Amino acid sequence: MRASRFFISTLKEAPSDAEIVSHKLMLRAGMIKRLGSGIYNYLPMGLRVIRKVENIVREEMNRAGAVELLMPVVQPAELWQETGRWDKMGPELMRVKDRHGRDFAIQPTSEEVITDIVRTEIKSYRQLPINFYHIQTKFRDERRPRFGLMRGREFTMKDAYSFDRDVAGMQQSYQIMYDAYVRIFSRFGLQFRAVAADNGAIGGSGSHEFHVIADTGEDALVYCPTSDYAANMEAAEAVALSVTRGAETQSLVKTPTPGKAKCEDVAELLDLPLSQTVKSIVLTVEKEDDGAINKEVWLLLLRGDHDLNEVKASKVPGLADYRFASEAEIVEWFGTPPGYLGPIGTRKPVKVVADRTVANMHDFVCGANELDYHYTGANWGRDLPEPIIVDLRNVVEGDPSPDGKGVLAIQRGIEVGHVFQLGTRYSEDMKATYLDEGGKPQLMQMGCYGIGVTRILGAAIEQNFDDKGIIWPTAIAPFEVVLCPMGYDRSEAVKAEADKLYAALQEAGVDAILDDRGERPGVMFADWELIGVPHRIVIGERGLKEGKLEYQGRRDTAATAVPLAEMAEFIKAKVRA
Amino acid sequence: MRASRFFISTLKEAPSDAEIVSHKLMLRAGMIKRLGSGIYNYLPMGLRVIRKVENIVREEMNRAGAVELLMPVVQPAELWQETGRWDKMGPELMRVKDRHGRDFAIQPTSEEVITDIVRTEIKSYRQLPINFYHIQTKFRDERRPRFGLMRGREFTMKDAYSFDRDVAGMQQSYQIMYDAYVRIFSRFGLQFRAVAADNGAIGGSGSHEFHVIADTGEDALVYCPTSDYAANMEAAEAVALSVTRGAETQSLVKTPTPGKAKCEDVAELLDLPLSQTVKSIVLTVEKEDDGAINKEVWLLLLRGDHDLNEVKASKVPGLADYRFASEAEIVEWFGTPPGYLGPIGTRKPVKVVADRTVANMHDFVCGANELDYHYTGANWGRDLPEPIIVDLRNVVEGDPSPDGKGVLAIQRGIEVGHVFQLGTRYSEDMKATYLDEGGKPQLMQMGCYGIGVTRILGAAIEQNFDDKGIIWPTAIAPFEVVLCPMGYDRSEAVKAEADKLYAALQEAGVDAILDDRGERPGVMFADWELIGVPHRIVIGERGLKEGKLEYQGRRDTAATAVPLAEMAEFIKAKVRA
Repeated sequence: MRASRFFISTLKEAPSDAEIVSHKLMLRAGMIKRLGSGIYNYLPMGLRVIRKVENIVREEMNRAGAVELLMPVVQPAELWQETGRWDKMGPELMRVKDRHGRDFAIQPTSEEVITDIVRTEIKSYRQLPINFYHIQTKFRDERRPRFGLMRGREFTMKDAYSFDRDVAGMQQSYQIMYDAYVRIFSRFGLQFRAVAADNGAIGGSGSHEFHVIADTGEDALVYCPTSDYAANMEAAEAVALSVTRGAETQSLVKTPTPGKAKCEDVAELLDLPLSQTVKSIVLTVEKEDDGAINKEVWLLLLRGDHDLNEVKASKVPGLADYRFASEAEIVEWFGTPPGYLGPIGTRKPVKVVADRTVANMHDFVCGANELDYHYTGANWGRDLPEPIIVDLRNVVEGDPSPDGKGVLAIQRGIEVGHVFQLGTRYSEDMKATYLDEGGKPQLMQMGCYGIGVTRILGAAIEQNFDDKGIIWPTAIAPFEVVLCPMGYDRSEAVKAEADKLYAALQEAGVDAILDDRGERPGVMFADWELIGVPHRIVIGERGLKEGKLEYQGRRDTAATAVPLAEMAEFIKAKVRA
Repeated sequence: MRASRFFISTLKEAPSDAEIVSHKLMLRAGMIKRLGSGIYNYLPMGLRVIRKVENIVREEMNRAGAVELLMPVVQPAELWQETGRWDKMGPELMRVKDRHGRDFAIQPTSEEVITDIVRTEIKSYRQLPINFYHIQTKFRDERRPRFGLMRGREFTMKDAYSFDRDVAGMQQSYQIMYDAYVRIFSRFGLQFRAVAADNGAIGGSGSHEFHVIADTGEDALVYCPTSDYAANMEAAEAVALSVTRGAETQSLVKTPTPGKAKCEDVAELLDLPLSQTVKSIVLTVEKEDDGAINKEVWLLLLRGDHDLNEVKASKVPGLADYRFASEAEIVEWFGTPPGYLGPIGTRKPVKVVADRTVANMHDFVCGANELDYHYTGANWGRDLPEPIIVDLRNVVEGDPSPDGKGVLAIQRGIEVGHVFQLGTRYSEDMKATYLDEGGKPQLMQMGCYGIGVTRILGAAIEQNFDDKGIIWPTAIAPFEVVLCPMGYDRSEAVKAEADKLYAALQEAGVDAILDDRGERPGVMFADWELIGVPHRIVIGERGLKEGKLEYQGRRDTAATAVPLAEMAEFIKAKVRA
């Protein structure tokens, strides 16, 4: 590509509403342009990156045996009603009426439509397994769109759907997709991590997220550097920090802790480690029973330095629909406002659930259910009954890995892919069956597999930038190489050499852009560093006299002189590395 | 591609609601699947054709210097309000509200959005000309969607928009696109014709349509086989069929024509050629003048064997907003019901407009404004005043070409592309200006250029099919070649040779599919003939013994034996022909 035939539009400053670095840099580099809240034009420079991402995704999906089709953006409500998602999905599902008043959804995903296709097209076990995917525009009417392409409303997603005869088949299809995703993210040239995710109602290892590692990521990824254990924070198992409960050595003492409502303050006042304190969290569950509302109050206990994992809490039998208790409820059940609560001597009966670590504590400190008082020396069995014991907390750095093979570390990530075993969630509602060998209809077992194509751009930048701009991995850069001639419009020798090298690179299949705009070197360099092209060649008269050109990688601190005759091969090697 | 890893779904019968051949064959060949009225899933086989069409379009657009970007499907109403199209476009424009109640349009085209991009991105004359395009999902809420992909609601369109400094520049950009379109449709391997189209308010040769020639086409294309004149019916100029008016030879006679309200019947009764009769068409124009409705009645005269061209009528000064007169109006102005009207002796004054051919008639027959009577021997000047003379009629086969270089022929076409000089239609409303050399803001001159990507599929089939199915041109076929092994699952020799040839074709860059499904020959052949793959190779044990394979082109009536060693080269030559 010649720059004069392309569209380059860089900005010195990003608009003030851009909050994160990838959003700022994409705007400044002329990759995207805002059209409305969470809706972006992809300018030519940005579209090139999208296409490279799409092509890698497509190649690897095809290699994995998935078959590409294309499902519509505007989808009839009837199918969404069949699965109940028309009602269950809130305002995130963009709804539209046609001229006849019929309801449609603008697709956020396509489970309903693909299941509709498959239930009519697939009749026999002989046609299974099958995996269909498409790369298509999606819309999700986010309550608060922000961060540019990271949380937009209109975006491009690759979504794939596998259909199998049975659970074993589904798991195999899932593994094939998992492996394909590993290849895809490896080919992008991004640091990434696959983590086990919470998979809702379906058991087993039914769901993994793929994250691009970035300090600015919204998600905490838990992993064990000395084993292959990895899970997102929601799903990471927290083990008890002591294997057995220590023997009691203190007696229960109600201790004045005036004005100390937090574990940290209590520990400081009593000169005890925070890890000897217990935090109380009160949840309410309301159940309708024959018209009457039946209220249950639960007390969840965590070690003072631990945090509640809300997903884990929701999995405690009976807590699926919990909410945090109001202050009035706390006073009613415990006789004291928050800050001095505890499991011993509540005003009304509560169900007590202790985190695994709390269950093995002894001589611990907890609220005394009286304003300005805590108990010290509390011990299970003696001072209060044995609790229900579950994993309730977020893991922390240094926790033992649940596989027993080391200690856990935590890093930040940006979710860009998700693979999921759906089972019969959709095939049941939509009656997607096949005939087995005996001619009996059986429900198909489904999996679904998404990659946020446009989101990849934001994530790649969050991982790869410096104060000059973006640093694209070669595989998804808008151009692999930029040729910067010094005086293309003034020097015959420079122009001739630049044109020749450009032709040679094109011939070699290198995706190069020749900056023939006639800009000053400072402007040229600043533009291409901002845009983030990973390899740069400078063609100048001085170098040419010595038969040399200058190469500089986007992360290099200095240029390398490369003999004229070797440059094409040199670059080919860099680009194909 | 191996068929076992692809998705093939053919039907013996098309659903009964498919009205035209392309719709039927696309459904039967498993190219598309209906999701809702005018909304289709593109199944894997159909998507391959779409991608091939898109790639050719993209290559030629890039070659012509256009730059690809991607504009959103969901677009804020504000921009559509700026140009007035939010109100002007009827229910065809699909409208949607987001969770905050803000209005959006699902794009049918993108003039507003591209003009919004350009008015902020382009500041100086130095940045012009520029031509942006995208290939994107469009939605048009058609009143009566039908004919499969021919008149769908959701479809894929390539739309390009050029921006220039002045009219001369716009015309140059237009010509570049026109030439690119000629290359694109040539590369598709389709018979097509570019015709001048009516270009509304903008003068000059500002608009051309590109049609795929097909007997089933909705549009009539007028062309001169011995010159390059070509126009659609709306725009084709009809010249006077006699160059001068003949001298009068008869006197005006009121002749009884009881019950003969049609020119054909009158001519038969009077034993005169139809071409001596004149047809009267009454139009009404209502103008508001100081609160009062001012009604004007016009009489349009056409030769008895000619048809009114409504677009031409609307261009007669004063007739822009005409409607056909009601029977009551006709009686009020002419004193007689329709069938016996004429320009001589109307009850109230009417404006008379004669088609060019009528203006040169003499001794003609027309209604006498009295029930059951016509005049014969009517002559201009003597019996009635000279009329306003304009081109009012549709041309007919055999008319002289307006360029004087032959006679006109008519064929049917399907519109698949349109290039249009917009001028400042959008740049004026949206204040899209650039600074000229003197630093003065000037309105940009725009052009727009569309290709109906998904419609191409329907049009290509309407042009290329037989009783067995589709016959794709090689360039846009889902696969260029199909390999049909006779007994892939039974014969080692056949399997080995099929695999080897398949590998050789892949190596040569030929897009081949190997039918390894193990179907019977009859099923295989029927499937691939229906799907329309243009080249077929049969690998059978009998042929192999003689060192031969069978080749048959989709239009060939018999197979050709080709030596084993030569087949790859043979096919390469066929495919690249």
